[in-house]
Amino acid sequence: MIDRIRLRPTGQGLFEFTAEVIESVARAKVCDGLCTLLVQHTSASLVIQENADPSARRDLERWLARLVPEGDALYSHTQEGPDDMPAHVRSALTATSLSIPIADGQLAMGAWQGIFLWEHRHHPGMRTIVVHLLAD
Amino acid sequence: MIDRIRLRPTGQGLFEFTAEVIESVARAKVCDGLCTLLVQHTSASLVIQENADPSARRDLERWLARLVPEGDALYSHTQEGPDDMPAHVRSALTATSLSIPIADGQLAMGAWQGIFLWEHRHHPGMRTIVVHLLAD
Amino acid sequence: MIDRIRLRPTGQGLFEFTAEVIESVARAKVCDGLCTLLVQHTSASLVIQENADPSARRDLERWLARLVPEGDALYSHTQEGPDDMPAHVRSALTATSLSIPIADGQLAMGAWQGIFLWEHRHHPGMRTIVVHLLAD
Repeated sequence: MIDRIRLRPTGQGLFEFTAEVIESVARAKVCDGLCTLLVQHTSASLVIQENADPSARRDLERWLARLVPEGDALYSHTQEGPDDMPAHVRSALTATSLSIPIADGQLAMGAWQGIFLWEHRHHPGMRTIVVHLLAD
Repeated sequence: MIDRIRLRPTGQGLFEFTAEVIESVARAKVCDGLCTLLVQHTSASLVIQENADPSARRDLERWLARLVPEGDALYSHTQEGPDDMPAHVRSALTATSLSIPIADGQLAMGAWQGIFLWEHRHHPGMRTIVVHLLAD
Repeated sequence: MIDRIRLRPTGQGLFEFTAEVIESVARAKVCDGLCTLLVQHTSASLVIQENADPSARRDLERWLARLVPEGDALYSHTQEGPDDMPAHVRSALTATSLSIPIADGQLAMGAWQGIFLWEHRHHPGMRTIVVHLLAD
């Protein structure tokens, strides 16, 4: 079964949408199976990370921003703005698709894991994540 | 259903093979389902990235080559050539497997997304990507 | 079908568990299908890499440790120890889930590919990898 999750990030950063994925699994009434997510963009990505302490999230954002800065003289692809090419690089270094087993109707993730959209642009539009739900 | 795509990259860089994956999906006559790709090598990887502007592709290649250069004194694994160990590191930082939902017989990707083999060696041989196709 | 693999890494580094995944596939008696792995932690990750030469493994470990060092002044999330925040960053740069097609009862990987847990903490506890097995 195919579902779609639409998010409206307010800027760069990690935006948790675990609750939306749980709803999607519940609607599909999957007991055991597999949930696959694909973000339909090349300047935003997916990551499963700690959702307990916001300081971990902030450090991740700052670390990647430092590794892949704006204004790097290497970039020739600059006509879509200074945040566009860093967004592509940051996306390539993180995940475009994620697969999460479903057991007993629940996402089989760890206690501290949350699912995040990692938005890499300052002024993004609506973002779409395609969800594939497989029931065993 | 299992399929295999064989590519012959001409050197380092991003080689799009979206068309080959679309053909594989069409041959399997999947309407809704899931397409999973695995590259069977540890010195080449997979990435979904912008396929509109070649300058974005070139910047990605140059950025990763700068982050993971040849000739780094850190490497002890050098007997397979100066491009071998950087190829393993570059592969580990990008993807070995990708999963793409299929909706209405089409890969459910975004308008600007293409599927690429990221070849990390200068003189690669034939590369094989295993394709698993699931029909809902 | 859902299975679980439990590993007890002895410290930081790459720990191969291809044999455990092969056993899981054999127990499930899958002929053709798909094997999906998810590591249930945010300070350990998954990677498919060369399993022939231990020097490649060591260089990967040392390269990532240098890119994401402990003691970086950027980190504010430090209350869980100096290896915690680097572990989150290293996990975000590598994979949390992997999907491997199964053909003729075998993982359809390349000749030199092995499946590794990449442990990023010095004193980890037990680590759990959830395995989803799909038979076509």
